[in-house]
Amino acid sequence: PLHLYVWNILVTGTNRGIGLDLVRYLAEKTNEETRIYACCRDPEGDKAQALRDLAIQHPQKIQLIKLDQSNEDSISCAFQTVSAHIGAGGLNLLINNAAIAKPPIPGLLSDTNKQDMMEGYETNVVGPFLLTKVSLSPSSQWKFTQSAVINISTLGSSIEKLPENFHAAQLYSYRASKAALNMVTRCFSEEFKSQHILVAAVHPGWVRTDMGGEQATITTQESVLGMINLISSMSNKDRGMLLDWEGTIIPW
Amino acid sequence: PLHLYVWNILVTGTNRGIGLDLVRYLAEKTNEETRIYACCRDPEGDKAQALRDLAIQHPQKIQLIKLDQSNEDSISCAFQTVSAHIGAGGLNLLINNAAIAKPPIPGLLSDTNKQDMMEGYETNVVGPFLLTKVSLSPSSQWKFTQSAVINISTLGSSIEKLPENFHAAQLYSYRASKAALNMVTRCFSEEFKSQHILVAAVHPGWVRTDMGGEQATITTQESVLGMINLISSMSNKDRGMLLDWEGTIIPW
Repeated sequence: PLHLYVWNILVTGTNRGIGLDLVRYLAEKTNEETRIYACCRDPEGDKAQALRDLAIQHPQKIQLIKLDQSNEDSISCAFQTVSAHIGAGGLNLLINNAAIAKPPIPGLLSDTNKQDMMEGYETNVVGPFLLTKVSLSPSSQWKFTQSAVINISTLGSSIEKLPENFHAAQLYSYRASKAALNMVTRCFSEEFKSQHILVAAVHPGWVRTDMGGEQATITTQESVLGMINLISSMSNKDRGMLLDWEGTIIPW
Repeated sequence: PLHLYVWNILVTGTNRGIGLDLVRYLAEKTNEETRIYACCRDPEGDKAQALRDLAIQHPQKIQLIKLDQSNEDSISCAFQTVSAHIGAGGLNLLINNAAIAKPPIPGLLSDTNKQDMMEGYETNVVGPFLLTKVSLSPSSQWKFTQSAVINISTLGSSIEKLPENFHAAQLYSYRASKAALNMVTRCFSEEFKSQHILVAAVHPGWVRTDMGGEQATITTQESVLGMINLISSMSNKDRGMLLDWEGTIIPW
């Protein structure tokens, strides 16, 4: 079980890849009182079959929530729905996992246009920003005491380390959005420090998903179990940092 | 005179503040053959009077160019106009200075909405991205040999140093956009390394401008003369870095 005293968990982008396995292993490794709010764009669509199957295996634990991070109204609506379920209780863990990479990898400069840049920022930065803001606002019913917000970032967000991996995949839009997400992570970490809400960014590793491709070095299971272990053992020293799935600090 | 062998310089956001003084001191400190393409949103508007006065003092040197960085067509059009002036020659220095800060300082979380985030990214990141991309494309007439692209960034873009200055001004949207601009800077630095185009980000200092406010510690003159000195003495070690106006490296 998680060391965090977790009751209510919200994860975004859960219909596939890392998000799906986050829900799977969080459901397996938490106690019976835990509730997992698994968000995705279209919980009733073809691409969410695996998530629906998982929810059927844990009918008491997993609740599917419709959320399109690029849509402000959808964020408000998802928040209201989750609030209604949680009632007077508080959210303990928010994992902002949903993200897009456009144009597809390697995301060459010549292939990257204004729309790619704007959509990448809207989904990968502004979505998590708005969802976190609404979740942590003083008027929110959610009480994030001794709780955490985890933003799924990437090694590719490290400006410092860029020369080591740029020529393997340029990913202008994705990298720019994730560097901005790191900044937002650290802003929130400072903003909510006094309320004992731990905010950090995590690099899941190079994972064999649709986004990571087949040559990636670890499975989603390895990544997700590593991240769950990391999140559940986080302390003050991890506040406002970018850590990989094994807990190693990555420079900005 | 600049140590760089400068003929053709493009600066954005030149109707006031740092941009205006960049044009002023570049005009004073360069040789007669230099041409400065001074871009702003509305060169004929009330807010560009000081820029027009400056251009009248240097009629051979300063050419005003209409450019709205938030508008893709305006970027293409400005590029075409400058290309027509430059002809077969090449641009030697591109200074991406134009930027917005919304909501106004201190940019509290409660005051920052989706539109602020999107507009900040559009103008502060996507604008410089597109202008640099079009300027450096293989099909461009501009030949950036032994030349530089300088992106005006800010100490506030440093994720590492955020805890030192966050509580003075939160600036969520501005910080996120400038962290992304730093990433784009470093991507371009790697992309164009083999073509000997130096790309770097510069923090102008805390400058007494409309954006910096009256309590700021240095004048635009001090900042701009420092940056011109820095830019004209840059070498390989400065490639892909964030430096302040005195040349000190700022961590990401």
